[in-house]
Amino acid sequence: MLSIETLRKEIEEGIAGFKFKREPIGLYDPIEYSMSLGGKRLRPVMCLAACSLFTDNYRQAMPAALALEMFHNFTLLHDDVMDNADIRRNQPTVKAKYGVNTAILSGDEMLIEAYKLLALTDSPAFSLVLSTFSQTATEVCEGQQYDMEFETRTDVTLAQYLEMIRLKTAVLLAGAIKIGALIGGGNAHDIEALYNYSIDLGLAFQLQDDLLDTFGDEKTFGKAIGGDIMENKKTYLLISALENADADQKKELLRWIGDTNAQRDAKVKAVRDLYEATGARKATEAKMEALYSKAMETLREMNISAEGKRFFADFGNMLLKRNR
Amino acid sequence: MLSIETLRKEIEEGIAGFKFKREPIGLYDPIEYSMSLGGKRLRPVMCLAACSLFTDNYRQAMPAALALEMFHNFTLLHDDVMDNADIRRNQPTVKAKYGVNTAILSGDEMLIEAYKLLALTDSPAFSLVLSTFSQTATEVCEGQQYDMEFETRTDVTLAQYLEMIRLKTAVLLAGAIKIGALIGGGNAHDIEALYNYSIDLGLAFQLQDDLLDTFGDEKTFGKAIGGDIMENKKTYLLISALENADADQKKELLRWIGDTNAQRDAKVKAVRDLYEATGARKATEAKMEALYSKAMETLREMNISAEGKRFFADFGNMLLKRNR
Repeated sequence: MLSIETLRKEIEEGIAGFKFKREPIGLYDPIEYSMSLGGKRLRPVMCLAACSLFTDNYRQAMPAALALEMFHNFTLLHDDVMDNADIRRNQPTVKAKYGVNTAILSGDEMLIEAYKLLALTDSPAFSLVLSTFSQTATEVCEGQQYDMEFETRTDVTLAQYLEMIRLKTAVLLAGAIKIGALIGGGNAHDIEALYNYSIDLGLAFQLQDDLLDTFGDEKTFGKAIGGDIMENKKTYLLISALENADADQKKELLRWIGDTNAQRDAKVKAVRDLYEATGARKATEAKMEALYSKAMETLREMNISAEGKRFFADFGNMLLKRNR
Repeated sequence: MLSIETLRKEIEEGIAGFKFKREPIGLYDPIEYSMSLGGKRLRPVMCLAACSLFTDNYRQAMPAALALEMFHNFTLLHDDVMDNADIRRNQPTVKAKYGVNTAILSGDEMLIEAYKLLALTDSPAFSLVLSTFSQTATEVCEGQQYDMEFETRTDVTLAQYLEMIRLKTAVLLAGAIKIGALIGGGNAHDIEALYNYSIDLGLAFQLQDDLLDTFGDEKTFGKAIGGDIMENKKTYLLISALENADADQKKELLRWIGDTNAQRDAKVKAVRDLYEATGARKATEAKMEALYSKAMETLREMNISAEGKRFFADFGNMLLKRNR
């Protein structure tokens, strides 16, 4: 099997081949800019990898892989408008660089471009590929909607949080892998197992991201620690802490949440200590481990080649052990 | 052939059959609201009509027709954000009723829903239907981009204006008719003629709309007269007037354009008079008539049934003679 690095190079070449130097440049330039900002290209890489489990002609999945990356970047353009975010991957967002209207309209065009790329798929499974893509896209929108609603809600449960991150984060990776496997000609049983594997891995990844945002090392995490705490984001950590806190701890936690003028270092440290004291950190780590183990268990029980299993296990380890 | 009214009723029934009472309601309620606001449903009606030119089973085009109406409403949600518009069809826009973020995200979901509806099309021409839909969608985005860019430009030519309204307005009607004809099994020659007919009619319709916005009767037009004048919108009227004005007229017109505190009645009357005096009104009416005649000529030369020609001619007359 090919390496992640080789597949990533092929994806980068595919993206470099896009022709966005056309009129109106005000519409297409921001698309080129967005696609050139990089990132790990995990979804398209794993789409190709999943395809290669079932056929040597894994490049059959290239248009769909590029469609998934285009879709992912479309969501970033619109999310950055909705979240009023000016910086992403250490670069100005499209919204910051070109304005809100451009981020909306160029984002719309990216969603259409994603469907155009997908339509280049030459496969007997095209109809299933198309419905999987659309269903995934809908779920990502649902996830973003829940994420926004949770900002103003105080009664979010752990189950609701997990469902939100499943929709907002996990389904796109899982959808990418499923689409690759469909194009490769995988059987329904293997495809379902791969999908479940990816969902659990995606959830574990998001929990790791939550942990790193609070307990990580600024240098390796790539952004300032404590962002979620400062925004009172209803993460697994915060929900666990509120559920497990005793009366005093709860009072203190709610006081920090309500304190809109809190000094950053003080609030981050205090809330972090509460996450330790209430066992929220341990609970989040345990949930992450359980999801990771479940994913690996699903992988072990699949009927794919040993080489394929190793590739997907390595991917899971890369995704989840990056800071350990 | 069926009547426009019968087809419209079928479209309304199709829309009433949508199931948008689902979670998260914050995402789906605005879609239901938007689709229930009504409108003339011209595009889906004409999609069915075009299909019926070539097959009795015109309902084969129903999913695509509904997809086109969903797409059209998606553009309204996002346009109303970009144009900061609070009222449409005498009702609050989604942006006004639910907020900007909802209008963006529910709009995104509507674009995805449009593709889902389109994917229900059962036709050997599906691949062409899909590419026509995406190409049309791209062109609508390009049209909106040009429209926004023209706001701050002073050098827009008549040709550029016509190209902008072709993209922003005409291609969606033409795309709807083409898609219906493709599903009905029309031959390439007829489909191209129908497409050209619809483009010319769509352009004429937009010029009529520009004329009504400036010279119409408030009661029948449905909104306040003079909106384009107050916004200094680069319509065919304004561009013609600037091109044909003598030195004094040009000076006066530019003074009104530059006057940000102008009293509405005074400005509308003065600019209207300049449109008459420079011949801009006549030029716009002549262009509209020429486009209408060209459309009807294209229709006459087609190889479809006499009944079909009558239907499309009646449609053109309905579209363009509404206030004469």
